[in-house]
Amino acid sequence: MALIVQKYGGTSVADAEKIKSVARRIARTKDAGNQVVVVVSAMGDTTDALMSLAATITEHPDMREIDVLLSTGEQQSMALLAMALKSMGYPAISLSGAQAGIRTDATYRRARIKQIDLRRIVSELEKGNIVIVAGFQGISEGEDITTLGRGGSDTTAVALAASLKAEECQIYTDVEGVYTADPRLVPEARKLDEIGYDEMLEMASYGARVMHPRAVEVGELFNVPVLVASSFNDNPGTLIHGEVAMEAGNKVRGIAHDLDVAKITVVGVPDRPGIAAAIFVPLADAGISIDTIVQNASIENITDLTFTVARSQLDGAMAVVEPIARSIGARECVSDARLGKVSIIGIGMQNAPGYAARMFRALSDKGINIQLISTSEIRITCIIDENRVKDAVRALHRAFELETND
Amino acid sequence: MALIVQKYGGTSVADAEKIKSVARRIARTKDAGNQVVVVVSAMGDTTDALMSLAATITEHPDMREIDVLLSTGEQQSMALLAMALKSMGYPAISLSGAQAGIRTDATYRRARIKQIDLRRIVSELEKGNIVIVAGFQGISEGEDITTLGRGGSDTTAVALAASLKAEECQIYTDVEGVYTADPRLVPEARKLDEIGYDEMLEMASYGARVMHPRAVEVGELFNVPVLVASSFNDNPGTLIHGEVAMEAGNKVRGIAHDLDVAKITVVGVPDRPGIAAAIFVPLADAGISIDTIVQNASIENITDLTFTVARSQLDGAMAVVEPIARSIGARECVSDARLGKVSIIGIGMQNAPGYAARMFRALSDKGINIQLISTSEIRITCIIDENRVKDAVRALHRAFELETND
Repeated sequence: MALIVQKYGGTSVADAEKIKSVARRIARTKDAGNQVVVVVSAMGDTTDALMSLAATITEHPDMREIDVLLSTGEQQSMALLAMALKSMGYPAISLSGAQAGIRTDATYRRARIKQIDLRRIVSELEKGNIVIVAGFQGISEGEDITTLGRGGSDTTAVALAASLKAEECQIYTDVEGVYTADPRLVPEARKLDEIGYDEMLEMASYGARVMHPRAVEVGELFNVPVLVASSFNDNPGTLIHGEVAMEAGNKVRGIAHDLDVAKITVVGVPDRPGIAAAIFVPLADAGISIDTIVQNASIENITDLTFTVARSQLDGAMAVVEPIARSIGARECVSDARLGKVSIIGIGMQNAPGYAARMFRALSDKGINIQLISTSEIRITCIIDENRVKDAVRALHRAFELETND
Repeated sequence: MALIVQKYGGTSVADAEKIKSVARRIARTKDAGNQVVVVVSAMGDTTDALMSLAATITEHPDMREIDVLLSTGEQQSMALLAMALKSMGYPAISLSGAQAGIRTDATYRRARIKQIDLRRIVSELEKGNIVIVAGFQGISEGEDITTLGRGGSDTTAVALAASLKAEECQIYTDVEGVYTADPRLVPEARKLDEIGYDEMLEMASYGARVMHPRAVEVGELFNVPVLVASSFNDNPGTLIHGEVAMEAGNKVRGIAHDLDVAKITVVGVPDRPGIAAAIFVPLADAGISIDTIVQNASIENITDLTFTVARSQLDGAMAVVEPIARSIGARECVSDARLGKVSIIGIGMQNAPGYAARMFRALSDKGINIQLISTSEIRITCIIDENRVKDAVRALHRAFELETND
């Protein structure tokens, strides 16, 4: 008898009909002789509705109380899903984060799971129950309700699968799996049967909105096989795991893109030790996430420092950087909010330098100007004008022959 | 420094403006130098909306999961109220039934409080916090969420006041207190400054929708002074307590009425031991609450047995009683769903038989026919045609001179 963890996102449980359909899918897994633990998100846009409700009370709602409020969303969907299963004759029980033993730190709005006390879940499984666990939430050492922030329900599911040593963690969502590129941009994009954790991490971080990178990291750390598939049909989905065929490693697996990129360049920076810290420490303190950083080669001890942030953080970042730029004697700060990025991702790229050249040529053939380049072991990213992102993704998909089968 | 427990019902926290207004009232109590524990119901018709949601999933939702679902209503309002207080600069913290240590039995939908583990509440009060507790909910020994059923939030408040040895439990609601009769029926009805527990219990049980009798019982048992007042103005309200002036005891305090009465008569019942049990045990098993029971004097060992139930339970009761009536050889079962009842209530009535006569004369003067009579130590109730209830309440209010001051 295998133990399967399944996770259903908000769109999969958005109304009563969808909840009943999810219940039927769970029932099939149970009928196949498995033990099943289900992690469920809040219905549809419940979380947004609750945030709006809080905003009618005060502009700056207390973080602890936001978590108390938001956690009711998953508590509602878990109860409804358990009801649906029981009405079909399947033994089921819902458990809140606290009841399921999801212990977190006390960082409200973005708590991290510290450990999972499995006693209640195991005892309910032993009674033959399908166990429905609220995603996205936990409880702190001080018995306060916490929420896990973005990617929280995915993370709950993978962490539970890891703790329970489940055979597989199945993430059911509104897409059918991980594609070689966004199918809305590239009609010939192909669904991948499997992908490695590191590749998925780069795909997830670089704009493929299939599964949150945080959850992929937990999967990698504990080597949990994660299947991403659609909750609306029975197509096979993509298996994210650590045992991708060796030969498949040495090629580009997919193209990721992101349209939410803004760039700041501090022009004419004196090139001396401590300058980077002087700029980036205050940005971090202001809660601004920096993505790519590029520093030009220094000419006569004067350099340009360029970095990218999410568009929504551009104004905040400029407000922090401009006074610093003046105080360190830089010439000026310039920004550009209309950028995007495209990345090619695949294990083994570092050892096969031809990939970068092929990427740059494909972009150049389309007349696409590259503004910044950054790389990791398994990824090459180019930052380009946002209007050219679609062309770039299509050109790269063709250049690396991703439309053909593995 | 006194400790005050305040309870706000659903209409008092129905929207953001009302929640902020409740927060200001709580702040005033805190500013006056008190420690404050607040019990809050779900906003407006949230509980009904959640029940409807469950009904879209299944006709017969599981009771445990209904409690999981319903408990989110109070969890939302407690979080919003705590946010409102914190945004005004008052330290506050919300606690669910589980967090507040409200331990109940495991009877879903109508759990009873077994004990309250005060550690968390006391610790938060010691930190200077206003403590906002979810009404209507608790947690069982097995760590399952329970709800307390009708009157649950009132009961939470009075039970907390008892456990905390609070100076007073204040129930804020949409009426200004306990009246000598329903002001919608009797314009000259007068608000009582105070009333004894037993009198309130009769008033509450017999149709005065101010406070649930279950909560009054807890108040009496632990001698908690309970103030019932409006959450929408600063008028004084009614104090329910055990120390009503001795002289005030010996008179009628109020007129209660109830329009939700149906009557069943089993006609021609053989008068032998065990007949009453044969009828009423199966009714109890079917979850039907019997109110008044009257058995006529037996003539030739044949009698009529009449009892009343809530109108919504009439069909269910008839379905139980008719086969029994046949099996015990009764002649027939007849029912009447269009009844109401009026009661006069006051301590010391038993020792002053003139009251019953005055009541019957007042009704007879108005041509109102009495169908059944029942009495307790402090109450006389007449069951009459529902169309005459309004006239009866007015006539009795006048007959006992309740419009004049004490």
